[in-house]
Amino acid sequence: MKNVLLTIAYDGTSFSGWQRQPGQRTVQGELESVLSQLCGREIKINGTSRTDAGVHALGQRASFQAEFGIPVERIAQAANNLLSAGRGRSGVGDVRILEAREVDPEFHARFSSHGKRYVYRIRNGAQPDLFRRNFCYQIRERLDEAAMRRAADSIVGEHDFRCFMAAGGQEMETTVRTVYDLSVTREGDEVSLSIAGNGFLYNMVRIITGTLAEVGLGKRRPEELKRIIESQDRRNAGHTAPPQGLYLMEVFYENQRNL
Amino acid sequence: MKNVLLTIAYDGTSFSGWQRQPGQRTVQGELESVLSQLCGREIKINGTSRTDAGVHALGQRASFQAEFGIPVERIAQAANNLLSAGRGRSGVGDVRILEAREVDPEFHARFSSHGKRYVYRIRNGAQPDLFRRNFCYQIRERLDEAAMRRAADSIVGEHDFRCFMAAGGQEMETTVRTVYDLSVTREGDEVSLSIAGNGFLYNMVRIITGTLAEVGLGKRRPEELKRIIESQDRRNAGHTAPPQGLYLMEVFYENQRNL
Repeated sequence: MKNVLLTIAYDGTSFSGWQRQPGQRTVQGELESVLSQLCGREIKINGTSRTDAGVHALGQRASFQAEFGIPVERIAQAANNLLSAGRGRSGVGDVRILEAREVDPEFHARFSSHGKRYVYRIRNGAQPDLFRRNFCYQIRERLDEAAMRRAADSIVGEHDFRCFMAAGGQEMETTVRTVYDLSVTREGDEVSLSIAGNGFLYNMVRIITGTLAEVGLGKRRPEELKRIIESQDRRNAGHTAPPQGLYLMEVFYENQRNL
Repeated sequence: MKNVLLTIAYDGTSFSGWQRQPGQRTVQGELESVLSQLCGREIKINGTSRTDAGVHALGQRASFQAEFGIPVERIAQAANNLLSAGRGRSGVGDVRILEAREVDPEFHARFSSHGKRYVYRIRNGAQPDLFRRNFCYQIRERLDEAAMRRAADSIVGEHDFRCFMAAGGQEMETTVRTVYDLSVTREGDEVSLSIAGNGFLYNMVRIITGTLAEVGLGKRRPEELKRIIESQDRRNAGHTAPPQGLYLMEVFYENQRNL
């Protein structure tokens, strides 16, 4: 029996999110189907983040235990060949295993994780870019990224973040989380948020993005953020930014937080 | 009666090409449906280039004659609002009218054109980029762009290009065309061809790209191009590069060739 850790990238556009659901095309469902085929028996994988429909990943992780007839380092290519099968013109599928490696028996992709980093991409140009409609949030009015940066400073650190939590997530013991780092950068017409933390509440990154976008548009002042967090009330925070701008970039494990 | 010229951008991924076809989602069909709705009667438009399924456009042109209740300069926004309706998460549709303007009564988007410029994008990296699978041709082995450039030099000028013509196009009087300019450039992992000419035969840009890619991979020598063209035989040229790397960039009209 081997314990295997996968690193996975996907374009979330055509998936009903990560989590397996009967009758829906999901990333977990697609991967389990291919891995089960390779393994000759049913495989269930544990993903680190249950990303929503439309959300992308460059560094999702998942682990599972199985016997494999092939060496672990060949799993990625074998699975990708199956995943790419029939993917149309380009021959490249919308989900891809970047790496498969054997890990200690007690390792678990979610429970062993020390945190994650997400990036949220906003296109901030006068004309929408139709080629990027599934890959960013398009805001036409000019965003003041310096104001967004000041607002972001209030978010970094350990706080009860329930003001940034949507209803409908899983039950949890606490809504206290630590944001290690939150940067706002502009490159031409693109404003990106990069946020790292030890854990994120349901829709937390998208609500933070919506709130910071409202600051960038001058609808809120950067100083409000502190009060919003203290209020612990979702109604005081901003809108939920749409899923297609969100990317799960990396998952942190011991000795590789890579901040 | 006004004669109107449209400039159109589209992501060709989800279209069965430009040309109206019963039961298929096409760019022409989508635009005609929306313009007919705005006009209150059936509108037929004449596009410059009948792009294939999967091919994109940043500067397609189309003209049509109609009476409009709204000023011509408002057509683009009114049509885009209808085109974006129900386009899902991002609110941005996959086809967009960039400009609508009134032109002389005798102007015709196709017959008045003096030529076109296409760009063909190749991703040349060891790992395929799944986010770009619908937007470029992915070739993993390193392309020698200097060799491709030498080969390209034999293509520029006036030639009978039937060696680069696929079967299945429209009938035409001559297969002689003039390529004004063909450049091959690399930017990091992307190799792009930019080709301008007074007209292009069916699949000509994609067959030229496939042939130059074979030169870039060392499967053909740059000097062969001259003989391939002289042979006037499609079997001597290379493969047809896939549609998703091709972009119609601009259409030239009098006094605005913009080369």
